[in-house]
Amino acid sequence: MPSTNLTFSDRQAHRAWLAAQAALPAGFRVGTTRFDFTPREAPKPAKMTLTLIALDRATPHFAAMFTKNAFPGAPIIVGRKRLKETTLGAILVNNKISNVCAPHGVEASERVCAEVAKLLNLSSTQILPSSTGVIGWGLPVDAMISALPQAVSALAAGSILPAAEGIVTTDLYPKIRRAEVAGGSIVGIAKGAGMIEPNLATMLVYIFTDLAVPRAELRVMLARAVDASFNTISVDSDTSTSDTVAILSSGRVACTDFGAFERGLHTVCRDLAEDVVRNGEGVRHVIRVAVTKAASPALARALGKAIVNAPLFKCAVAGNDPNVGRLVQAIGKYVGAHAHGTDLSKLRATMGGVEIFANGVFQLNPEKEIALVKHLRDAELYTSAAPKDGVFTAPIDFPPHERCVELEIEVGNGAASATVLGGDLTHEYVSENADYRS
Amino acid sequence: MPSTNLTFSDRQAHRAWLAAQAALPAGFRVGTTRFDFTPREAPKPAKMTLTLIALDRATPHFAAMFTKNAFPGAPIIVGRKRLKETTLGAILVNNKISNVCAPHGVEASERVCAEVAKLLNLSSTQILPSSTGVIGWGLPVDAMISALPQAVSALAAGSILPAAEGIVTTDLYPKIRRAEVAGGSIVGIAKGAGMIEPNLATMLVYIFTDLAVPRAELRVMLARAVDASFNTISVDSDTSTSDTVAILSSGRVACTDFGAFERGLHTVCRDLAEDVVRNGEGVRHVIRVAVTKAASPALARALGKAIVNAPLFKCAVAGNDPNVGRLVQAIGKYVGAHAHGTDLSKLRATMGGVEIFANGVFQLNPEKEIALVKHLRDAELYTSAAPKDGVFTAPIDFPPHERCVELEIEVGNGAASATVLGGDLTHEYVSENADYRS
Repeated sequence: MPSTNLTFSDRQAHRAWLAAQAALPAGFRVGTTRFDFTPREAPKPAKMTLTLIALDRATPHFAAMFTKNAFPGAPIIVGRKRLKETTLGAILVNNKISNVCAPHGVEASERVCAEVAKLLNLSSTQILPSSTGVIGWGLPVDAMISALPQAVSALAAGSILPAAEGIVTTDLYPKIRRAEVAGGSIVGIAKGAGMIEPNLATMLVYIFTDLAVPRAELRVMLARAVDASFNTISVDSDTSTSDTVAILSSGRVACTDFGAFERGLHTVCRDLAEDVVRNGEGVRHVIRVAVTKAASPALARALGKAIVNAPLFKCAVAGNDPNVGRLVQAIGKYVGAHAHGTDLSKLRATMGGVEIFANGVFQLNPEKEIALVKHLRDAELYTSAAPKDGVFTAPIDFPPHERCVELEIEVGNGAASATVLGGDLTHEYVSENADYRS
Repeated sequence: MPSTNLTFSDRQAHRAWLAAQAALPAGFRVGTTRFDFTPREAPKPAKMTLTLIALDRATPHFAAMFTKNAFPGAPIIVGRKRLKETTLGAILVNNKISNVCAPHGVEASERVCAEVAKLLNLSSTQILPSSTGVIGWGLPVDAMISALPQAVSALAAGSILPAAEGIVTTDLYPKIRRAEVAGGSIVGIAKGAGMIEPNLATMLVYIFTDLAVPRAELRVMLARAVDASFNTISVDSDTSTSDTVAILSSGRVACTDFGAFERGLHTVCRDLAEDVVRNGEGVRHVIRVAVTKAASPALARALGKAIVNAPLFKCAVAGNDPNVGRLVQAIGKYVGAHAHGTDLSKLRATMGGVEIFANGVFQLNPEKEIALVKHLRDAELYTSAAPKDGVFTAPIDFPPHERCVELEIEVGNGAASATVLGGDLTHEYVSENADYRS
């Protein structure tokens, strides 16, 4: 279950809520700048935003987790080195180009860090770089260095909103979540809408706190929170080469209750993870699968993932079509291929609370069909409409509600459980990704 | 590489070629009938076709392979029992409803088999049943039994085309492949367009031969041929609950060259497998991935599958967008999650013969971009057009050519190889599956 049950009537209501979420913990400042450039590999004009998040004083209290994709981006390679440094002073994020396997990508990333360090009077090893966007292209280092002073002079305390807006690519709206705990606060922002099946962490998430939690504890808590949040979602089963979740503490507020801090961190991570799915590329329905009574937590999660990643089931949900045969297909596909021998004879499944499968057979009738269609329609974020020029686009840039298509899968052969979030598969997803770079 | 390189200018040319493929081996007859009925679970009028393929004399020479999905259809459960029978006399296939986990599904299947047996003067254990279509609904047994005499009276030797046409659901055109070997022939038909990532076998494939190959040899040869053909394809990563590949020999021609027979069987299976992908739901580009120099055949195939199942890469191909970053992402996703530690430093990748990745970095420039776009356009089967009413449909019902998007992935750390076929992800796929049952 989500920690919130928000509804927004329009963009203004959503922006007002975001502004209230956005208060920066003490000790941080944010500055952004946007500029034009032309990529080397496929010359077409493009725009890049630089987002700089700086600490007033470099901090020893930080943690970060990165993608397990075997072709990590250059900033991931640099970031893994930064984890060993004594202190961190700033994060620089660019969108539009992800700097993955580009020639001399690490050198490019380090050159930009060196320039940030010079402007902030830090060492370059105190700068954590992040890049997101097209895979395969190289960073426009000279153009970025020319633009940096503008981001530095824009640095301001108070709100994280400029950063939440600055790091996006195909996101429809900025994502900010916060928790007030133990006399301080935790605020997190997320970027990510496609290439989302995080393996350890998801596309660009930054979390800031003023609570003084030492790095050893921070790293353990971050790993647990990420595993219970970002590692349970999938928009499209693709794992980004740039996934990053980082947390920085300014240490301004003494932390007397680590348990409360960790609960707050879990809430922020879980809510941001749901935000990422709800704002996933083309997502019109968020699908929540609660798997219970499974033989192991890994099997429970895998069954949930198998359902939210089954293209035919995702398409049916997009069409408000309760084609539950495809749901059962997805479970059987996973068990047949990866968990052969699992006893499925006691499996029970519900959609929107309606029992659809039990004792090895479907439990369907025309009345249930009507109830299932209503459940799907109620969970729809917006209705797809065929556009005049053939290019589908989302008609909204705010989340009207936080309802999900609710599935419960009771496996019946164990005591483990997991909840997984995913999205449907829509024309909007295809349109967005059939010519993303144009 | 395909065994053929066909092009068809229009539907008539394709139908003429199919008719030439369709000559039935001696000893088989085919009859079909079509009727209206109303499903119990969601009352809406529907149509079903029954396809009956009968041997003149029941044969001991037969083999079949079935889905590994852990929720197999009732006909799969019955079919596994049939493998132990002494002889087989006929196959009955129905479309529209797949009879998977429906209440009393096995009894329904056996009742229909008993009726076929009565009409053909056989025992019900000599009938192999097959069902394809909606998962979750029950067979309309009474309506099927009423329609059966019509199929029996239509039985005729000569052509398999009525069966190839009778077994389809969302297929755009019938699929028939043949091989003339060792003085006899092998002819196969396939049904399948979605829910296609076979695990052991694919949706409904039937192969017939007059060559007398005993069942022990047939079963070994079929397993090898299926592994090298249907198990290397994926339209959408979903594994059907009804996958079946069956081969029956009428034994009319003595087989003196088992090697030639097996090569012919491989060719028929491989070509039918490519037909299934080329006619896959919404497929506008067939993607062929040749993985070489891998550490194991399993890893080679898994990397190929990871590429053809990566939604973002599939969407890029649909848009003729050579977004090779997403290709590398897919390889890295698989290795990071399932083959950690694999050395990728020597990996080399080409698309349409153009080198795009080598020595850990992309090898891109604007000239290559132009060549890659041309390669994608040349492999397109038809151009997607936004329809007036918002429902995308394929403008063709024949395969205009057999060209593929050709990818070569040289892993560089072993001697194993594999070739995998898949399709792109298009608006047509989403349209077809967002309301398949309506």
